[in-house]
Formats: sequence, structure tokens, C-alpha cells
Amino acid sequence: MDPERNQRLKVVLIDTRNPLNIGAVARAMSNFGFFDLRLVHPYEVAFREAVSAVGAAQVMKDARVFETVAEAVADCTLVVGATGLGHRQPQHPMHRLEKGARLLRRHMTASNVALLFGSEKFGLGNSDVSHCHWLTHIPTRAQHDSMNLAQAVAVCLYELIRQPSTARHMPEAAELAEGEEVERFTDLLENVLQASEYTDYSMAKNGRDKTHRLVRRMHLRVKDAAVLTGMLRQVLWKLKHPQG
Amino acid sequence: MDPERNQRLKVVLIDTRNPLNIGAVARAMSNFGFFDLRLVHPYEVAFREAVSAVGAAQVMKDARVFETVAEAVADCTLVVGATGLGHRQPQHPMHRLEKGARLLRRHMTASNVALLFGSEKFGLGNSDVSHCHWLTHIPTRAQHDSMNLAQAVAVCLYELIRQPSTARHMPEAAELAEGEEVERFTDLLENVLQASEYTDYSMAKNGRDKTHRLVRRMHLRVKDAAVLTGMLRQVLWKLKHPQG
Repeated sequence: MDPERNQRLKVVLIDTRNPLNIGAVARAMSNFGFFDLRLVHPYEVAFREAVSAVGAAQVMKDARVFETVAEAVADCTLVVGATGLGHRQPQHPMHRLEKGARLLRRHMTASNVALLFGSEKFGLGNSDVSHCHWLTHIPTRAQHDSMNLAQAVAVCLYELIRQPSTARHMPEAAELAEGEEVERFTDLLENVLQASEYTDYSMAKNGRDKTHRLVRRMHLRVKDAAVLTGMLRQVLWKLKHPQG
Repeated sequence: MDPERNQRLKVVLIDTRNPLNIGAVARAMSNFGFFDLRLVHPYEVAFREAVSAVGAAQVMKDARVFETVAEAVADCTLVVGATGLGHRQPQHPMHRLEKGARLLRRHMTASNVALLFGSEKFGLGNSDVSHCHWLTHIPTRAQHDSMNLAQAVAVCLYELIRQPSTARHMPEAAELAEGEEVERFTDLLENVLQASEYTDYSMAKNGRDKTHRLVRRMHLRVKDAAVLTGMLRQVLWKLKHPQG
């Protein structure tokens, strides 16, 4: 997250009908660290009380209402419209969100950006789009590209804060048991199998290998390996001391 | 999109209170091409009528209700819980969504996966988590990590169908005007400026360069360049024939 950069994004909702959607948008913004919400003539004047703005009271309180799109984006040097593929207009470049967000992020390092969302029912109108430098669309199914407004905003904001590197790097080691511990456990398991006269593995020529692979596939964690080892030790003792 | 692979994902909602959230989840699933919705004792029996399932009637109709988590995930070889960072449990590996989705996608190429979401108020409970191989979290702000249920589902599904390559490649050419046309337009503009005795550029030593850069920055599209050229031609004619 880069708070200063995120501050440069203005989420602009145009003609929103349902105040619950405004609240849900505010919540998603707060979740992802964006705080500048702008509304162009929302239908419901009392939108600020929307109960759906869970944890986002400040975003709702600070939200500004504008009469026109032009006023809402007056301080922005890039205006981008979020729309379904069905709204493709030949005179406007359209980028899939993965690419669109990359362009937005780049622009946000230096100056203000407006991301426009149209009404629940009709999306962005032609006059709204005329304010946009380009459009972006979430890669939905062509057969069902109409998303819930607040879900669409959540997905766009997520793409903006997403860290590609996180998918490439391995996360912190999950404290997996090391080879030696796994080996010890495998030995113990073999002893238990032998002691219990389990024939499927012990009679096979490659029985040892099979046991090995079996244990490897368990991806044992350190603590679990210790617990299981303790269990098997007890089992082995009992097998060898049936009257004990 | 890979419909066959997507079919292997089972979205499991546990203890969902608000049927509107179930409908909104179904809508997001349909948007992104996932159709197997499973509910573990939802609070509202009449959830199938939720008006929020816009365009997702089939997903709602096919949704199955289970008594226990174990039954809901019985046909899955990997069970993953979606949860906030606040719910981190030391005994469970936790992956950020970018990484988690990569692991899920890999698994979905061959077998069934369950993605679990807990109730709106409490998220996944301890007994729900005990069914999970690992957990995944959406990278929200630590100060506000509680997301709306349906928004969280939408973001997870989006990450699953996201195409990283799309962000790297340039989109289809936007039919930008070629160098020669831009050059012609620049010449024309210079003539107009000269004819109109615009001094700021023509008097500067590098006036020509400045005009050039100015036009380049416009990233003119073919059609726009043609229209603007026509306009300037007319302007130039008028400048030269004031009495015409």
C-alpha cells in the first residue's frame, strides 16, 4: 500500500440509485485504503446514513456531492470509465482491468485520477464517457457482464493494490519438518508396520520406497511430526509388549 | 476462462445470515463463470428468492444446502478458507490471495476445490477452519480488514480468472495516427500559428520542436487526425483569405 499514491484516486459514482451501494463502495474503499469518494447527483439525498458502510463512516462523512461530472473530475488529469464490455464504444480505447490498473497506478504516482462508475441500471452514459480518456472493463463472462456496483468497485480497487510479486515468491516457510525428522518418522513407521505384520508394504520389493514417498506426501510440519512420532513410538512399544 | 476447470471450484458459504448476500455471491459467480454454490445452514430458508442474484437465477436454483461443512466439501481434495488477517491461526498456513489463487488454480486443473467463506459477522469459526488445508486472505488494510461477504467472494473469483499476461501485453492497436499524418498535421498547425501571428512558438528558436512535441503528446487517432486536419485547413484558408 502507498497511502500518498492511493489518495490521488478519486472514486466517482454517477447517478447511483441505491444508498446501500454507496455504503458498500465506501466500505470497499476503506478496506483497500482509498478515501476520496465523489458522488454526482445520487438519487437518495440521505445516502450518508447507509448501514452498509460498515467501518467506513469517515469515507461517507467526507464524500462530496457534485452537480456535474466535469466538476467532480476538475482536479484530475486522467479520467477513466469502468464499464462492461457491452458498452464498448469504438471511439474510446478499452483496456482489460489488469492492464487498465497498471496504467492508472503509473499515473497515480504523479497526479490525480478519477475512476468513474455509472448507475446500477444503465452504467455510464454517453455524456459521462465523453469525459473519459479511456475505458476499463472487468473480465467477466460475455454472457453476464453486468456486475453489482459495489462488487465492481471492490474488484477494481483490489487490482490497484494487488502485488504481483506476492504470487511469485514463496510465503514464509511453514515450518515443515526437515528431512532428518521425516526420515526418523519413516523408520518408525516401518518398524510399526513390520511389528504389526502389515504385509502389503513389507513384502513388496520396493516397500521401503513406497513408505518413504507416502510420508513425503504428507508434508509434515515440525510439531505434527513430533506428535505423530510420539504416537507411533507408543504403538510400537505396545506391539512389542502386548502384555505390558 | 476455462469452464471445465472453473466447474471444479465449489464456493461454500457457512452460516450466511443475509439472503441478499447469497444472491450477490451468486451474481459474482455467474459474472466470473463459476456455478457450484453450496450453503451450510444458511439462516434464511427462503434465500433462493434473493433479488440481488441479478442474472444468476440458475446458480441460485442449483445451489445446494448442507447440514455440515464435512458434507459440503466431501468431494473436494483441497479445502481453503477465506479469512481476514485478524483470524490468522498459527497452526494454519496463510497465503495472500495473489499466491493463494495461484495454488487453487493449479489444483483445479485436476480435482475439486472448496473455497470457504464464514458468516458476515464472525467469519470462519474454529471448527470450520479445521476442515481447511490452508487459509487465504485478501490484502486489505490491517486497520479495516472486514469485507462485505459478496465483495470478498467477487475479489477472490476475479483473482482466479485474472490473466497476468493481459497486463504485460499492449492491447489491440487503438488505430493511432501514423508518423506521416502527425507530421502533416504539425506542418499545418505551424502554418496556422504563423498565419495567425502566434508569437510564443514561432519566435522561439526551438518553436518547431515544441509544436512537434505538443502534437505527439496528443496521441491522435487516425480519424481524429483527419477531422482536425480538415478543421485547421479551413482555419488556415480563412486566415489567408480574411475577405473570402
